Amino acid sequence: MGASFRLRYPLVMKFCSTCGHPVISKIPEGDHLPRFVCTACNTIHYENPRIIAGCIPEWEGKLLLCRRAIEPRRGYWTIPAGFMENGEAVQDAAAREAQEEALADVEIGSLAAIVNVIRAHQVHIMFRARLKNTNFGVGPESLEVGMYDEADIPWSEIAFLSVDFALRRYLEDRRAGREDAHFRDIDYVDGKIVLRDR
Amino acid sequence: MGASFRLRYPLVMKFCSTCGHPVISKIPEGDHLPRFVCTACNTIHYENPRIIAGCIPEWEGKLLLCRRAIEPRRGYWTIPAGFMENGEAVQDAAAREAQEEALADVEIGSLAAIVNVIRAHQVHIMFRARLKNTNFGVGPESLEVGMYDEADIPWSEIAFLSVDFALRRYLEDRRAGREDAHFRDIDYVDGKIVLRDR
Repeated sequence: MGASFRLRYPLVMKFCSTCGHPVISKIPEGDHLPRFVCTACNTIHYENPRIIAGCIPEWEGKLLLCRRAIEPRRGYWTIPAGFMENGEAVQDAAAREAQEEALADVEIGSLAAIVNVIRAHQVHIMFRARLKNTNFGVGPESLEVGMYDEADIPWSEIAFLSVDFALRRYLEDRRAGREDAHFRDIDYVDGKIVLRDR
Repeated sequence: MGASFRLRYPLVMKFCSTCGHPVISKIPEGDHLPRFVCTACNTIHYENPRIIAGCIPEWEGKLLLCRRAIEPRRGYWTIPAGFMENGEAVQDAAAREAQEEALADVEIGSLAAIVNVIRAHQVHIMFRARLKNTNFGVGPESLEVGMYDEADIPWSEIAFLSVDFALRRYLEDRRAGREDAHFRDIDYVDGKIVLRDR
């Protein structure tokens, strides 16, 4: 199960995962950012952004959406998406999330969007997808799964800004007969959401 | 400094970074993959793929390449690329790496390639870029930085398969007057490298 969009890691490291001794936050020699460094074995523990892989499954013009059964944003609608795992490709992660959240078989298509969700330390990578059949269902992380015509998409109940962005660009492209990739940053500055297109 | 392409983390976790007690590897309830889980506080420690952000800086038809001063692949040529950091966008990470490795000011352009480097737990995301001026130099992680005409690229001394792929597709696209995004997996199966285009 993808544990989608939850922060997946303790934000503050207190102990070295290699030797168990306390770590401190400091800028290692030759580096330019503070890292957690072990006071005993000197291991440097890097934290880097994580990838959320998702897809927009289409069937006869309708889009598959899932209503979330888990926090954050329980009860809101999203596309299948979740944390990419070690040992897989980002496209396969997106297809796996469709299987897990909507029991859906999809064929991954072109890249739809890359969204830098800067304060969450996440990069959301979302692909177009074709539903291979209509044997989808409700996965354990979903309350409900449905196929939506463009006119019926519950825009006011979309779980995440990145998903709203990907869906809107997807539909604009579809109307125009193209399949572009779209890029945006979602950031917070002085407590306010700032959106930057690229 | 980007510490490019080095494995950035201990591959095996022995102690909980939250409480310092030993962890074991097990599949948490409701999950489907083994994770390191603390025997005392039950914290689940997830490991996910990391992003290498890079760019292909161009100036008057020539491409900027760096000869690596660090392992792995010391002495081999690459484009500016390195680990994306928390708090930045992938495009800004690519530009920062150009600054660090080649003291180069670049303007990031369109997406050139996404390569899943599966066994390394990395996703390489590489952009086209325009060198803003020719005031580049040799950063501390480079032995040498140069501008190469297509005919002079040292193909047999390129450091990484992902970079070879991005450069070749970039040049093909340039000849054809297009700017496509290209996708590949680099995997190992039975001890052999397997390349999969997508």
